Amino acid sequence: MMAGDIDITAYMKSLKSEVDDALIAMLQPIRDWVPERLYEAMVYSLGAGGKRFRPILLISSYSMYDSEWRKSIPYAAAVEFVHTYSLIHDDLPAMDDDDFRRGIPTCHKVFGEALAILAGDALLTEAFRIFSETRDDGISLENKVRATWELAKAAGAAGMVGGQVLDMQFASTGANEKAVKEIHRKKTAALIGASILCGAILSGAGEEDLSLLSQFGSNLGLAFQIVDDILDVKSSFSEMGKKTGKDAEIGKATYPSAVGLKSAEAEAAHLIDEAKSCLKVLGEQAAPLEAIAEVCLRRRS
Amino acid sequence: MMAGDIDITAYMKSLKSEVDDALIAMLQPIRDWVPERLYEAMVYSLGAGGKRFRPILLISSYSMYDSEWRKSIPYAAAVEFVHTYSLIHDDLPAMDDDDFRRGIPTCHKVFGEALAILAGDALLTEAFRIFSETRDDGISLENKVRATWELAKAAGAAGMVGGQVLDMQFASTGANEKAVKEIHRKKTAALIGASILCGAILSGAGEEDLSLLSQFGSNLGLAFQIVDDILDVKSSFSEMGKKTGKDAEIGKATYPSAVGLKSAEAEAAHLIDEAKSCLKVLGEQAAPLEAIAEVCLRRRS
Repeated sequence: MMAGDIDITAYMKSLKSEVDDALIAMLQPIRDWVPERLYEAMVYSLGAGGKRFRPILLISSYSMYDSEWRKSIPYAAAVEFVHTYSLIHDDLPAMDDDDFRRGIPTCHKVFGEALAILAGDALLTEAFRIFSETRDDGISLENKVRATWELAKAAGAAGMVGGQVLDMQFASTGANEKAVKEIHRKKTAALIGASILCGAILSGAGEEDLSLLSQFGSNLGLAFQIVDDILDVKSSFSEMGKKTGKDAEIGKATYPSAVGLKSAEAEAAHLIDEAKSCLKVLGEQAAPLEAIAEVCLRRRS
Repeated sequence: MMAGDIDITAYMKSLKSEVDDALIAMLQPIRDWVPERLYEAMVYSLGAGGKRFRPILLISSYSMYDSEWRKSIPYAAAVEFVHTYSLIHDDLPAMDDDDFRRGIPTCHKVFGEALAILAGDALLTEAFRIFSETRDDGISLENKVRATWELAKAAGAAGMVGGQVLDMQFASTGANEKAVKEIHRKKTAALIGASILCGAILSGAGEEDLSLLSQFGSNLGLAFQIVDDILDVKSSFSEMGKKTGKDAEIGKATYPSAVGLKSAEAEAAHLIDEAKSCLKVLGEQAAPLEAIAEVCLRRRS
């Protein structure tokens, strides 16, 4: 899996399948005490597909410093909990008011608004339970606490939540390039970056490597969202599994709307180049992350 | 502060004032990166008064095993973040739809529904940032991780969030005594219990003491909510700072509605007796917790 010439499609598919299995398993320790309807709403949203991009990144960066990569699966599942909560809340009527996500009805359309809010709250909270749960994985407590802090910082008021606030503020008014970048960095890149950092922190990477991976994540995360914006302009419902062209319709701040489609495509490619250059000194072990960065640029959904 | 004959009113007032100051201070490390409007909504809700009951409990249990109790203030503030988030979300139109809380308009009435949801999300997330932040307090990493886990478990799907789900399910249908107890244990007692446990865990209490404090917290937490139910029946708006008698009006599952007011009062008194008996073997150091339990029974708001 760690070879230079990896089959990245097979690699990502295999990790996705491991993560898919782990997501529900992570709820088992509390299963008997969770009200049925809440459990259903959480499982519905966790199981609603998705690329599992963030968990795959966490596992990939963990693997760079510890070959026993399965130890990272609970933490990988936890970052997907955080991502899933953010989607549920973003889709709410008071926010983006989306009826479909990944080709199926959104949580609030199926379970109602109150339960959707609460399922999101629960997923966010359970992510921190998973991070702090005692397990015989030999991961140092210092690294566990530090990874927890990175996750909280990235997901919180200065990160993802703050990004959603800015996103809503600029919807309807539109935003210039600088503002769009700030929104994307907070709303999307922060959690993507934290996923990469958490994996490396948990497996004991040194400070220099963490600094490089932090830059890698920052570039990759921003590129990921710019590509998402581009796909929203270019793709159809059947490819994206959600209403597309909606960003423009509601005047949402996107990178193509700020700088044009061509410049957006060039910027995404540039950011992926920058990201890949951060990995250079990390050598062969960074091959999966490098390949994922390329996939991120080429993706169609 | 630890004497047997403590002036509990002065004690609680002094701790409340320390906590009030700490709440905003805990946002300072991220202040510059938080969108202004989000910051305002968080500060508004944090500053909207409240007894600071949970943080006072955390500090009080911490003080039992470490005289340098100020070390516990950040963690105490964090549990108030979690409590405040839960109030903001409970008050939302999709939930209890309350316009007033602690005598002032609720977060969503002032900032709108989207920002209220996000301010709640942010407060919850920042609580975990605060728990995992590095500070020179000498608290063992093992105890930090364990306290984080207790907080997450109490606040999550099997705890507070699950309690709100049950509360909403039984609103309109009403609930029998067993169901009301389950709602109250999850929705209220879990976080109160976790506050007490976290304080003791962080200051290094032994397993036997933790077990006694866990029972204490469970009894106190349930009593606290039953007293709240009773006050809702008996008090006026000016005393409670929110609309009262509302529980009955919307058919909400309350202890008095399940067993009658007299039995509810007897049960609260019984639970406080039980709680106090858990503290017996802990001796003099538990005097503040014992006094707080008495205050909880006598309180008028």
